[in-house]
Amino acid sequence: MTVHEVPTTTDPKGGRPVIPSRSQVRPLGLHEITLARGFWARLQATNASGTLEHCEHWMERLGWLANFDRVAEGRTGPDRPGWCFSDSEAYKLLEALAWEYGRTGEPEVDAAVRRLTARIARAQDDDGYLNTCYGHPNQPPRYSDLEAGHELYCTGHLLQAAVARLRTSGQDELTEIARRAADHVCDTFGPDGSHGICGHPEIELGLVELGRALGEDRYIEQAKLFLDRRGHGSLKDIPLGRAYFQDDIPIREALVWRGHAVRALYLSAAAVDVAVERDDDDLLAAIQRQWAHSVARRTYITGGMGSRHQDEGFGEDWELPADRAYCETCAGVASIMVSWRLYLATGDPRYADLIERTFFNVVATSPSSDGQAFFYANPLHQRVADSVPSDDAVSLRAESTARAPWFDVSCCPTNVARTLASWQTYAASAAEGELTVLQYAGMRIAADVGGGRTLGLDVETGYPRDGRVTVRVTEAPGGVATLRLRVPDWADGAVLEEGGRQRSVEPGLAVVEREFHAGEAITLHLPMAARFTRPDARIDAVRGCVAVERGPLVYCAESVDLPAGVALDGIAIDPGVVPTEFGELPHLRCAAIVVTPHSQQSWPYLSAATTGSPAADRDTPARPNSETPAPARTVQLVLSPYHQWAERGPTTMRVWLPTVTSP
Amino acid sequence: MTVHEVPTTTDPKGGRPVIPSRSQVRPLGLHEITLARGFWARLQATNASGTLEHCEHWMERLGWLANFDRVAEGRTGPDRPGWCFSDSEAYKLLEALAWEYGRTGEPEVDAAVRRLTARIARAQDDDGYLNTCYGHPNQPPRYSDLEAGHELYCTGHLLQAAVARLRTSGQDELTEIARRAADHVCDTFGPDGSHGICGHPEIELGLVELGRALGEDRYIEQAKLFLDRRGHGSLKDIPLGRAYFQDDIPIREALVWRGHAVRALYLSAAAVDVAVERDDDDLLAAIQRQWAHSVARRTYITGGMGSRHQDEGFGEDWELPADRAYCETCAGVASIMVSWRLYLATGDPRYADLIERTFFNVVATSPSSDGQAFFYANPLHQRVADSVPSDDAVSLRAESTARAPWFDVSCCPTNVARTLASWQTYAASAAEGELTVLQYAGMRIAADVGGGRTLGLDVETGYPRDGRVTVRVTEAPGGVATLRLRVPDWADGAVLEEGGRQRSVEPGLAVVEREFHAGEAITLHLPMAARFTRPDARIDAVRGCVAVERGPLVYCAESVDLPAGVALDGIAIDPGVVPTEFGELPHLRCAAIVVTPHSQQSWPYLSAATTGSPAADRDTPARPNSETPAPARTVQLVLSPYHQWAERGPTTMRVWLPTVTSP
Repeated sequence: MTVHEVPTTTDPKGGRPVIPSRSQVRPLGLHEITLARGFWARLQATNASGTLEHCEHWMERLGWLANFDRVAEGRTGPDRPGWCFSDSEAYKLLEALAWEYGRTGEPEVDAAVRRLTARIARAQDDDGYLNTCYGHPNQPPRYSDLEAGHELYCTGHLLQAAVARLRTSGQDELTEIARRAADHVCDTFGPDGSHGICGHPEIELGLVELGRALGEDRYIEQAKLFLDRRGHGSLKDIPLGRAYFQDDIPIREALVWRGHAVRALYLSAAAVDVAVERDDDDLLAAIQRQWAHSVARRTYITGGMGSRHQDEGFGEDWELPADRAYCETCAGVASIMVSWRLYLATGDPRYADLIERTFFNVVATSPSSDGQAFFYANPLHQRVADSVPSDDAVSLRAESTARAPWFDVSCCPTNVARTLASWQTYAASAAEGELTVLQYAGMRIAADVGGGRTLGLDVETGYPRDGRVTVRVTEAPGGVATLRLRVPDWADGAVLEEGGRQRSVEPGLAVVEREFHAGEAITLHLPMAARFTRPDARIDAVRGCVAVERGPLVYCAESVDLPAGVALDGIAIDPGVVPTEFGELPHLRCAAIVVTPHSQQSWPYLSAATTGSPAADRDTPARPNSETPAPARTVQLVLSPYHQWAERGPTTMRVWLPTVTSP
Repeated sequence: MTVHEVPTTTDPKGGRPVIPSRSQVRPLGLHEITLARGFWARLQATNASGTLEHCEHWMERLGWLANFDRVAEGRTGPDRPGWCFSDSEAYKLLEALAWEYGRTGEPEVDAAVRRLTARIARAQDDDGYLNTCYGHPNQPPRYSDLEAGHELYCTGHLLQAAVARLRTSGQDELTEIARRAADHVCDTFGPDGSHGICGHPEIELGLVELGRALGEDRYIEQAKLFLDRRGHGSLKDIPLGRAYFQDDIPIREALVWRGHAVRALYLSAAAVDVAVERDDDDLLAAIQRQWAHSVARRTYITGGMGSRHQDEGFGEDWELPADRAYCETCAGVASIMVSWRLYLATGDPRYADLIERTFFNVVATSPSSDGQAFFYANPLHQRVADSVPSDDAVSLRAESTARAPWFDVSCCPTNVARTLASWQTYAASAAEGELTVLQYAGMRIAADVGGGRTLGLDVETGYPRDGRVTVRVTEAPGGVATLRLRVPDWADGAVLEEGGRQRSVEPGLAVVEREFHAGEAITLHLPMAARFTRPDARIDAVRGCVAVERGPLVYCAESVDLPAGVALDGIAIDPGVVPTEFGELPHLRCAAIVVTPHSQQSWPYLSAATTGSPAADRDTPARPNSETPAPARTVQLVLSPYHQWAERGPTTMRVWLPTVTSP
């Protein structure tokens, strides 16, 4: 690994989730990028206006926040509401609020942070331990269930929240809470302490970042210790296997992500952090290897990860069912965390490609347009339009046909909240004399490019509706500098226009290295024609299908757009005719043929009914298929961005569309 | 429902699992059919010599049998080994032993029954309650966890075991245990008692059959009560939903099987029993409707049921993934139980078609060739050849690449054992002046066809290797009688030969109605050429694939039969060229083309490696696919009966084979 020291800022407004001590490129902070308009600005605004208060409301309503009061007031008992990991939701909300305050400086948000912090502070034990589910009267003892207890997991989220606050507002009470909690963890699980690890990785992420933020190497060393201990079977075997919590194989030896997706990804993100802090090329290479293999074979076209409901986990290579895709929203967030750290460590824009794919097609899919309901799982095929959750009740289930306001296990809403509140920190990076724009949105950048120089840009674009991205120089750094614009992996035929000249640019980075002048504009033209994408032949679940993509967006078909009587599982499209734009972008349309099932020598031998309707009227088993194929009929198929699905009531949905094949 | 009273036998040797009071046809007992040679005789013999003792050994080793002693001796405590449902394994073993004794009259088997019965008897409480997990010192109270406690489930299996013993040996101590247990259930859960139901249906089956066997209508009424109570949400909601235990919709209103497959099927079997006993045409029609819909849309080509690991349950219509097929062995057994009852009630041979499919491709798949290891789940596609269970340890997992000797949840081995021990009871039926042969195997039949007349047959066949089934009349009933031979659903082109004349017979029943003479032979020729079966276009998971079948057997390809360097997920076959037989039946072979993945505009954009090997050597993310397709190469593909898979060490496997499609 070639690394060089990059300048870090101590500006309390310089909020960034990750500040590696060494990296190829430097992350920009909230003080350097402002999201101004467009797709992500809208989501961020909705997050601020709709989601943050929504999360606090539900946690208050369910007593998850009052759990802190109960500890403080010595009223703990077996009737504690919420799962053992509910504290972590309070911490993720706190982190989201911290980013939001860093971004906006709104006094009300600051007050919310202080209010929540004060409540949490009262629940901390004298020795620094902080958890509302263990270790107090009428509770199980501390660390008595490392496999499933989630204590260190909760602490990890506390530390991340404290880092967000510290980097957006400076040290305060939350810093001290986190420091005492981290010290307690180090004292308890240090080299001379218990050799345990937590069933859910996360503490490692919190320890490294708090260590970086406070200059406490002991925390980073503790994170390394947890990483090194993992993979040796110290956690109890469970029916899902130790791979579930990545305790099956040491992380340096693993070739691929496996087991519970969020666990695997939080762990890998922390491993990149430790690798970077410890100059550990082997560990970094191990995560790069796992990323490459897993993205190539265990990742959905949406960027979603997790093929199985059973363990919320990765499946085997090529096991990517569309209907039972789990693609937990939190796994999308966690995948972005890993890719971002790998990008910072290597400067390779392919990591930002996956980040973009995941942002648009997983993270943006979860919240409803008002930011007050969420998808937990993000399947690529919905077969039935039932199981619509109540909009005023906690959903027990991860899967549903509509977004739910809150979940019994409600990790996703707060994860979305903290990610959207800090979205722009993933949009660009800097290095000595260099600025790289990674994600496209209407935004203003004023980046420190070293030597006291600033490169200021105004990015204007209607992306992803429009492929034209104009970068206007608002402040020139003086002398030669480098501007790099990411050309996404799908963008074959992109063109860069500067000074009236156009040139083709390949996927990767389009580089402009010269002296810049305030007022000049550079425009990247990304090809936005809709395109069909075929699956690798080894992905059995979607063989014979194509997906429609346009720019970074994956599209889907919904039954609400079909004529009455036509079912989404009864159509096929001609892959030779690409979908076209029509009246109202972002929608697309194409023709689809209404097909009939095979009529001969097919399974099932017994056919209860020929098409969509249940076999309610059949009292006797049917005879072998003998349906006469109906004459071919063509319908117009409307395609919508996947992230918008289920916004118009119960519907069935498909991302992968069967194609008409020769008989 | 048109039903007529059929003669039931009180001959203690007339063992049959089900004896409806009214039915279209009468089941034959162990005293009327002897399995003589061939496929099922071998499995039955292995069951006798290998499985029964194996099951007892493991239950003894794990302390599951000693749990009865601990109750009897007042030594119960929280350290009770086994799950709360482990008693049921003892009862299913007892049932298997009872059938085995009924079939063979072996004194050692009788002694085993008596030994086990005596041990169970001592654990019964004074009021008839019998369960080793609840209701004794240091145990949770009786019926304190109806959702998950399985108490009534265990009792149901006890009653079934008692019926098997009663019908093969007459009343004894076990009858009394069962009667007292059933009385206790009726007293506790009767019309004036608790309104609860058990989270796992099964008690209903036991109550009806014990009621039939003892002439106790009260038991049948209690079964009806449990059925009627179900579906109204009296069990607590759980993350998997109340559909998991069929408490979501009243059974009369349901259109399809859903939720946990074994639960759904045991419940439906009991519903047929109640419908028949109570002359309830609506209830019978409801189960027929559910059967027809579920077989047409939620059943694998193997007859396997259960598409999801998460809840061991049915998926949505057309959700039939090959790789994650659960197809629990017990669900296969339970499906046969439902179909058998529907066949008896209606006489429709389509139910026997599914029974045959399930016998050969689910039940026969589970046990290893020595009867001492079992598949629990029966997937149709194995992607990796790892997770081979130890042959001396309890498997925590339902899924594995090899059969396991025993499971933490070990319902399947004893279910296989009781089913194989009574296999021939599903092979034929009688009615007034009529005998129907449903399943083909080397066997001798001497069936009471009413009016004191007997029709004796010797069935000679090499089926399923060979499609020739010769039925030799060994005893003519005198006067006109009817012989019906089932022509399976797949058997297009079957021919019936009698008296030197041949005639085509259609799938369904081939009927010979005339006077029979001892010594004459009638031969059914079933077409045994290998055939390709295409999936319905709505089964996404196997689109573009074909399965190979031959007779009743589903075939598969295993990687152990492929040349080195060729992976099972890298080949495709030409669906125009059917597989051929070669040297060693039952194996087949056909040509397969080694294919390369798509090279353009495909997902994943990032390809870690072109073929099977992990991307271990790639430290950086790969560039978009740019592989040059290798020249086409053809390999010989050996196909084996699915039920034999994984008998030759770790292997990957596919039932559904991708076909070469035009580009």
